[in-house]
Amino acid sequence: MKLSRKNLDQRLDRLYDAIVVGGGAGGLSAALYLQRYRLSTLVIEKGRGRSFWMQDMRNYLGLPPTTPGRAILQQGQEHLLSLDGDYLPGFVEDVQDEGDTFAVKVKVGKKDSTYPVFRSKYLVAASGLIDHLPQLDDMQNVYDYAGYNLHVCMICDGYEIGDTKCGLFVNTEAAINTAFVLNWFTPYITVFTQGLCEVGKEMREKLQAHGYPLVETPIRRFLGHDHHMTGVLLEDDSTVELENGLVAMGSHFFNQYLKGLDLEWKGGNLVTDSMCRTSHPRVFALGDLKEGVNQVSIAVADGTLAATAIWRDIRRASPPRLWEENLKQTTHS
Amino acid sequence: MKLSRKNLDQRLDRLYDAIVVGGGAGGLSAALYLQRYRLSTLVIEKGRGRSFWMQDMRNYLGLPPTTPGRAILQQGQEHLLSLDGDYLPGFVEDVQDEGDTFAVKVKVGKKDSTYPVFRSKYLVAASGLIDHLPQLDDMQNVYDYAGYNLHVCMICDGYEIGDTKCGLFVNTEAAINTAFVLNWFTPYITVFTQGLCEVGKEMREKLQAHGYPLVETPIRRFLGHDHHMTGVLLEDDSTVELENGLVAMGSHFFNQYLKGLDLEWKGGNLVTDSMCRTSHPRVFALGDLKEGVNQVSIAVADGTLAATAIWRDIRRASPPRLWEENLKQTTHS
Repeated sequence: MKLSRKNLDQRLDRLYDAIVVGGGAGGLSAALYLQRYRLSTLVIEKGRGRSFWMQDMRNYLGLPPTTPGRAILQQGQEHLLSLDGDYLPGFVEDVQDEGDTFAVKVKVGKKDSTYPVFRSKYLVAASGLIDHLPQLDDMQNVYDYAGYNLHVCMICDGYEIGDTKCGLFVNTEAAINTAFVLNWFTPYITVFTQGLCEVGKEMREKLQAHGYPLVETPIRRFLGHDHHMTGVLLEDDSTVELENGLVAMGSHFFNQYLKGLDLEWKGGNLVTDSMCRTSHPRVFALGDLKEGVNQVSIAVADGTLAATAIWRDIRRASPPRLWEENLKQTTHS
Repeated sequence: MKLSRKNLDQRLDRLYDAIVVGGGAGGLSAALYLQRYRLSTLVIEKGRGRSFWMQDMRNYLGLPPTTPGRAILQQGQEHLLSLDGDYLPGFVEDVQDEGDTFAVKVKVGKKDSTYPVFRSKYLVAASGLIDHLPQLDDMQNVYDYAGYNLHVCMICDGYEIGDTKCGLFVNTEAAINTAFVLNWFTPYITVFTQGLCEVGKEMREKLQAHGYPLVETPIRRFLGHDHHMTGVLLEDDSTVELENGLVAMGSHFFNQYLKGLDLEWKGGNLVTDSMCRTSHPRVFALGDLKEGVNQVSIAVADGTLAATAIWRDIRRASPPRLWEENLKQTTHS
């Protein structure tokens, strides 16, 4: 059922088979499978993750390519509730490993917050990441275009960028190298650093040799209308016309709650096995939290794998169910 | 575009980036990604694979759990054609490795067949498997229930089997062990061998200890109505009432066309790396052909991975695209 501060008391004594942190594509897929394996699941979702912002999911099999990310999430929530899974809007603050169980402390409500603690045998970390966006005084101006034609994922949207004038927005010199992958889709690339990083001689020459202008002047605002970005206005009052944008300014993992657990990391990613199990046998990591390709389809499959591994663990540790009636007949005959 | 014997001549001179054998969930997902990576793709689909038969896909995130498998395939086909991918109904008879290319011979048309040969740089094997079903004189009687409540996949349909009287249909003694996994969902299991295998003393005692009856008499027909199986009529005229069935009689891989290639196998499965690449650097295997969990979500993710690996290969081997106009300006200035 859908939990809120009004009814969550009903679940404080429950030991869930699994708590899933994150109600994006990976977390919801894991929870659907877990419930269908007849295991009890609580999904905790802070809201507004990466897939929530996608206006068109163009490469997920089975749905029209105009389906917004939030429609998939909404369908998954309804599906989960129909299977008697629990869903709580809230922010996971901390997880304690108590030995056989995890204690998951959640902040519920932005004002007058409460901090309930839920318990589970397994923990599924599916809290994903969020992309850094250009920081302008008027952030609404950025949000007007981000997820429309100001893209954050080349795999998702490179096709639409094809042969258009594309702005590449970066904040480090290393990220400028994205231009030399993006040029598979279009050669009409202008790189914008906003002066956030130094750019060395070698990189400048490489850009010049490719014909890709480098703009280091800060951006005042994005130009456009109806969520269609058409260029940028710079601080020096000049403008650059664009047809698309790609932001490559890094991202922020939502994984702070895992820092108290003894887990193996590789850079910002959790190390997992082929079933998404981390170095902790009862902690799984899905989708963008682990290494690999950051795509909804991958996260959905990761949910399948993690749930299946958890089911196998719990099933194998459980006594077999007998057809008692037949045993009695045998005894009596 | 959709190819047929009428228009396929237009494609015989083309060197595709990839030919995808199998238009199920994995093959279509790979093709969508490949086309969106701006690579040229031909999908060859023999029809009526495993997902085609599924009446309700109950665990694929984003779609209502009453969505039939063929609806996902239909949506994927339309999506592929909208991206200018090619789709050919046909049966792949043979693949020759010509060094830098593959020559893929296809049987098109069941009567007066033609045998065109298409060529590609990469081969994606996504031809899946089909489950063996009980062989009765009247196979229509089996098809009336298979994919409805005569299930073939415990992961997909164990939830619906929950606490019902379930018939487990096997053809080997080893497959009887499925009962001791199925009993996670229900203890009311009757095992049917149809006399197709010997059952040893140890297995008989184990079944008895669990209270699961063993029926070795051949089945005359399934009973039921409107695709809802309610039991079986045996050759000795007795009946057994059931509410669900699970067939565990093995499956048949569609992989004959791969047998001439130098690939590493493990049992019936192709060995692949984390991107679904086989031991041949330009052959990928998806979904049920490789080891792992046989689920639509996994096949869809496999398509993502294989397409991404192929894109990376081809992109890295291609000269960079330059913004020529800017280079000329530089030269002139």
